[in-house]
Amino acid sequence: MDFSDLPALDAADPLARFRDAFDLPGDVVYLAGNSLGALPKAAAARLDATVREEWGRALVHGWTEHDWIGAPERVGGKIARLIGAGTDEVVAADSTSVDLYKLIAAAMAAAPERRTLLGVQGEFPTDLYVAHGAVQTLGGGRRLRLVERGDLEGALDGDVALLLLSHSHYKSAELWDMAAITARAHAAGALVLWDLSHSTGVTEVDLSGAEADLAVGCGYKYLNGGPGAPAYLFVARRHQDHLASPLSGWMGHARPFDFADGYAPAQGVRRFLCGTPPILSLTALEAGVDLMLQANPAILAGKARRLGDVFLELAARHCPGLQPACPGPGRLRGGHVAFRHPEAAKVSEALAGLGVIGDVRPPDLLRFGLSPLYVSYGDVGRAVQALAAAI
Amino acid sequence: MDFSDLPALDAADPLARFRDAFDLPGDVVYLAGNSLGALPKAAAARLDATVREEWGRALVHGWTEHDWIGAPERVGGKIARLIGAGTDEVVAADSTSVDLYKLIAAAMAAAPERRTLLGVQGEFPTDLYVAHGAVQTLGGGRRLRLVERGDLEGALDGDVALLLLSHSHYKSAELWDMAAITARAHAAGALVLWDLSHSTGVTEVDLSGAEADLAVGCGYKYLNGGPGAPAYLFVARRHQDHLASPLSGWMGHARPFDFADGYAPAQGVRRFLCGTPPILSLTALEAGVDLMLQANPAILAGKARRLGDVFLELAARHCPGLQPACPGPGRLRGGHVAFRHPEAAKVSEALAGLGVIGDVRPPDLLRFGLSPLYVSYGDVGRAVQALAAAI
Repeated sequence: MDFSDLPALDAADPLARFRDAFDLPGDVVYLAGNSLGALPKAAAARLDATVREEWGRALVHGWTEHDWIGAPERVGGKIARLIGAGTDEVVAADSTSVDLYKLIAAAMAAAPERRTLLGVQGEFPTDLYVAHGAVQTLGGGRRLRLVERGDLEGALDGDVALLLLSHSHYKSAELWDMAAITARAHAAGALVLWDLSHSTGVTEVDLSGAEADLAVGCGYKYLNGGPGAPAYLFVARRHQDHLASPLSGWMGHARPFDFADGYAPAQGVRRFLCGTPPILSLTALEAGVDLMLQANPAILAGKARRLGDVFLELAARHCPGLQPACPGPGRLRGGHVAFRHPEAAKVSEALAGLGVIGDVRPPDLLRFGLSPLYVSYGDVGRAVQALAAAI
Repeated sequence: MDFSDLPALDAADPLARFRDAFDLPGDVVYLAGNSLGALPKAAAARLDATVREEWGRALVHGWTEHDWIGAPERVGGKIARLIGAGTDEVVAADSTSVDLYKLIAAAMAAAPERRTLLGVQGEFPTDLYVAHGAVQTLGGGRRLRLVERGDLEGALDGDVALLLLSHSHYKSAELWDMAAITARAHAAGALVLWDLSHSTGVTEVDLSGAEADLAVGCGYKYLNGGPGAPAYLFVARRHQDHLASPLSGWMGHARPFDFADGYAPAQGVRRFLCGTPPILSLTALEAGVDLMLQANPAILAGKARRLGDVFLELAARHCPGLQPACPGPGRLRGGHVAFRHPEAAKVSEALAGLGVIGDVRPPDLLRFGLSPLYVSYGDVGRAVQALAAAI
């Protein structure tokens, strides 16, 4: 594998045609789609139509005439197809952090005889912060217990109500075996809440096949939903009517437009909605999701994996001082590759000067996201060449 | 006061010039701005620029280059000027429902020796639903106590931690005297959380003058922020460092980009942020707020009041069967007028056929929002004529 092999890989790439569906600066190799995805051309046009034609012309009647009111379930149902879930098991709403809180609080409250929320040290910080806030708010002796990654299974004791895990680690791109961990947790009497933020659209996610319980994910990374796009949450059908959202806003009410004083949760996953849905942000997210649905999820995941393998192989050959910090070629890995470098921030800045946008996580990690809809094998080659020059 | 007096009122209206700043269908009198405000022309253009130039060109660097990361505080600081608050006391974030939850849980948790959240029957339902969910989640014997409007002061006993009130009632447009109620609550050792959703931009709100503690409000009504626009929350400076958000997401962390495992809340109102801010929706909201800031808040409130007085006077004269359901001319009233009619839904439909958009709240309430930036006295006259015809 060397640079000269890349044109053939691009020529054979069934996803190559999607590059034209994005509005990207022509001179840039964009490898930060794990942080903020690129702009789908359709998003700009659809948002403009939603603003001028729907809000501007239908005004308040847009809620029904343009089915704004159905947007959280409609967009959620589309995301469901990317993660192996039923269309009645996902809604798009709020932020990842808020959705995490809803599901942590709901699951912990439903198992009051168990008091531990179990997680792993060094996970995506907002997950840990929200977990901390949720157990504090619930009280009753509940606690957040964080263990090292290797100690997880031993920590699954009879006090664990819920296990909270990122499917793909935001730094190392390590992937959990979702079905295996779920089975272990179930055997210990616990539920599992998966954060799919760094997985959906770049790895194969099969929530139903893994008998997953609960999940959340981010709309603005690989789904290309725009800065701060709404998140989504998944509640397996079998749990929906046994769990109550702590954030019992009117959109989760059985009959929101009765305007009754008493709260009665909706049937199904809709009970996990809270406030009025942010239609403009949901419109952009829907454009990103619609684009991704034109591709086959297995082909997306396969290309992301191959892009990563090629990146790692080329870097091993051409950037000898660079230490990989993610699973190597052929191993289970999320949608990015990562390297350690003592001057990571400076290297990243030099790369940007060479037209290659990646990102840095303190203190010493370089990350490169490999969004399969718009990143080419040629882009990976250019990134490795720039990396060699920058170092 | 009759229809013939209206052209002179419009000619003397210092806000008349703002009508052209909105993109409204030419043949429509739009009186549902208390539900969804009209489209500011600037919003469409600014959103398009944010999408194509910021997201499309700066990509992930937009967080710093275009100060997306500062948007919740920047937009919040602008809203602060409409509600008599300090610019360091307000952030724009999440939905009204989520913000209500944050502040209810924070205030109740800070006064554990008191267990009552006091509210009023028939308030805006999502406020009551969220209140219900918050006390349930907090547990510890906490309860939501709802009393009739007239019984509120007698119910302010030593067990009340927090009083939750809509400043302007969503149906009747009745206004509380914010300073007086706040003083009574403080005397009883309780804090007050105001929902300003039906007040900001149409009534004079002076949170600092009233020594208010906490408030939330909606971005998509009179602020014209677009369907499902982010909400805002206010925490008085003196309370900020004593209250903890239950929704302790990374944007409320003291140093979110350290990516540390432990949660440390930011100083000031920023600790009440949670997830990544929805930049597209915040952009539209900022356009609406910027437009409103070009007007004087006292003139806005004065015009809204006068529009309502004129509406009620003309309706009394020309729609004899129609029963007003809001405070009469010259009395304290929010930004809309309301009437009861046994066939309210049919009347509203007939009005729409005549080009007058209002709305209905079950079972029998007709509401007409009087957004002072784009509703004229002539619009009110046309609405009353249509109402007389429809009945």
